[in-house]
Amino acid sequence: MNFCESKLRVRYAETDQMGVVYHANYYIWFEVGRSDYLRMFGMTYKDMEAQGIIMPVIENHCRYKQSAMYDDMLTVKTSIKELSPAKISFLYTLIRDADGVILAEGETVHAFISSSKRPISIKKVNPALYELFLRAKE
Amino acid sequence: MNFCESKLRVRYAETDQMGVVYHANYYIWFEVGRSDYLRMFGMTYKDMEAQGIIMPVIENHCRYKQSAMYDDMLTVKTSIKELSPAKISFLYTLIRDADGVILAEGETVHAFISSSKRPISIKKVNPALYELFLRAKE
Amino acid sequence: MNFCESKLRVRYAETDQMGVVYHANYYIWFEVGRSDYLRMFGMTYKDMEAQGIIMPVIENHCRYKQSAMYDDMLTVKTSIKELSPAKISFLYTLIRDADGVILAEGETVHAFISSSKRPISIKKVNPALYELFLRAKE
Amino acid sequence: MNFCESKLRVRYAETDQMGVVYHANYYIWFEVGRSDYLRMFGMTYKDMEAQGIIMPVIENHCRYKQSAMYDDMLTVKTSIKELSPAKISFLYTLIRDADGVILAEGETVHAFISSSKRPISIKKVNPALYELFLRAKE
Repeated sequence: MNFCESKLRVRYAETDQMGVVYHANYYIWFEVGRSDYLRMFGMTYKDMEAQGIIMPVIENHCRYKQSAMYDDMLTVKTSIKELSPAKISFLYTLIRDADGVILAEGETVHAFISSSKRPISIKKVNPALYELFLRAKE
Repeated sequence: MNFCESKLRVRYAETDQMGVVYHANYYIWFEVGRSDYLRMFGMTYKDMEAQGIIMPVIENHCRYKQSAMYDDMLTVKTSIKELSPAKISFLYTLIRDADGVILAEGETVHAFISSSKRPISIKKVNPALYELFLRAKE
Repeated sequence: MNFCESKLRVRYAETDQMGVVYHANYYIWFEVGRSDYLRMFGMTYKDMEAQGIIMPVIENHCRYKQSAMYDDMLTVKTSIKELSPAKISFLYTLIRDADGVILAEGETVHAFISSSKRPISIKKVNPALYELFLRAKE
Repeated sequence: MNFCESKLRVRYAETDQMGVVYHANYYIWFEVGRSDYLRMFGMTYKDMEAQGIIMPVIENHCRYKQSAMYDDMLTVKTSIKELSPAKISFLYTLIRDADGVILAEGETVHAFISSSKRPISIKKVNPALYELFLRAKE
């Protein structure tokens, strides 16, 4: 349960005139990976937001190695990199299913904030979730 | 004051591997046109939402004549087509600045709803705005 | 084989500050439906483009009935509406899986053009494909 | 001439259900900044591609400090960070015009490749452009 794999197929809308996927879209795929990762815990991000736990991206990074192309089947492999009561970060590996080649590696860092956009301690607000994250990270 | 012209330059992200702008993005430009149209009245859509007047798209249509391309300078010409207390529709003409050619013609229909997503009468909720729209339409 | 069903989950990136999916994204889902429809014939759109058969959208229309929301599981049901040697049109029904409610109904019209962007007759260029489309439509 | 300022207004489509701009869109704005930067030299990116000089993003990074919101007027301040015959990197500062607050700081790294996607030396392929970049960086 230390990582989660999401499958997706490249959409035409995601390409640009270079004939490959526009780079910013990789971050949308990472979000798909992150959503699936949370779902794996039986805790959807939708539920988290409903409970007033918001996780905005405060930093991200991506290294692009090879281009994803229209109609490619891809796997996003998501794991937790770091966790503190105030922040969480995720790692992503994007793999092309046809040949197993790694297309990109990325990272996103998130703050935990409340619905009113104040910083919160996830450890205090939802200790059970914090424990789950902690164990997943190991 | 019966129409509004918005200028925009095509972004690389808006193209697809056909080498032209992906069709769905035209609706985003129409939204830019609509926002500018409302701003022309001194009433931004941001203010309208803050006042609890939401205008979701309930129908739209576009006829694509020629392709917009990366870096093109374009004009969106926006006007009101129809108005009732429950609904409003806008017309859009997308023009390529370099030669004045019409690239697309579109239409969006919007319901007036409240923050709680109930249908409202704009005529009752904000008669002054209704009057403004009515005069603009003429 | 007269229609194709595509499953997709709503991405966070597809929502807007109304708390629902931004309307233009429905057309991207229709494209997913269209791609899957063609794949059903053993003829991917990727292959078609490689063979020099391009299908740009020349007109589209959508009627929005209820909002799609983040994390919703949806089905796009795609079928062919009309076919001629020069054009093809598709119909789409967007269904929310949780309760089977129809969220939207759309249509896209496409011209058949060559890689050099000239109109072509699909009947002449690829009679087998034209026959497949014809039978699918029935 | 060592930096370029681009003005843009936040589009509704760029927001998400958090009520702020979706993080991946910042990279699209950086691309707007980069395009304008090149245009400042009288060398548009469109021309560069036409000459067979392609600049795909091979790495990017963004630090998000405060949220951009719908209808905000923003400035993207773009400059060159590093240059070699094989690569170029740009720095971006995103500023909210209303109060001058820095919303985000980003960076993108690009390889120079040919139309056939082979690495090229910009110094050899277009020495004049390389010199321009070099002087702009100083």
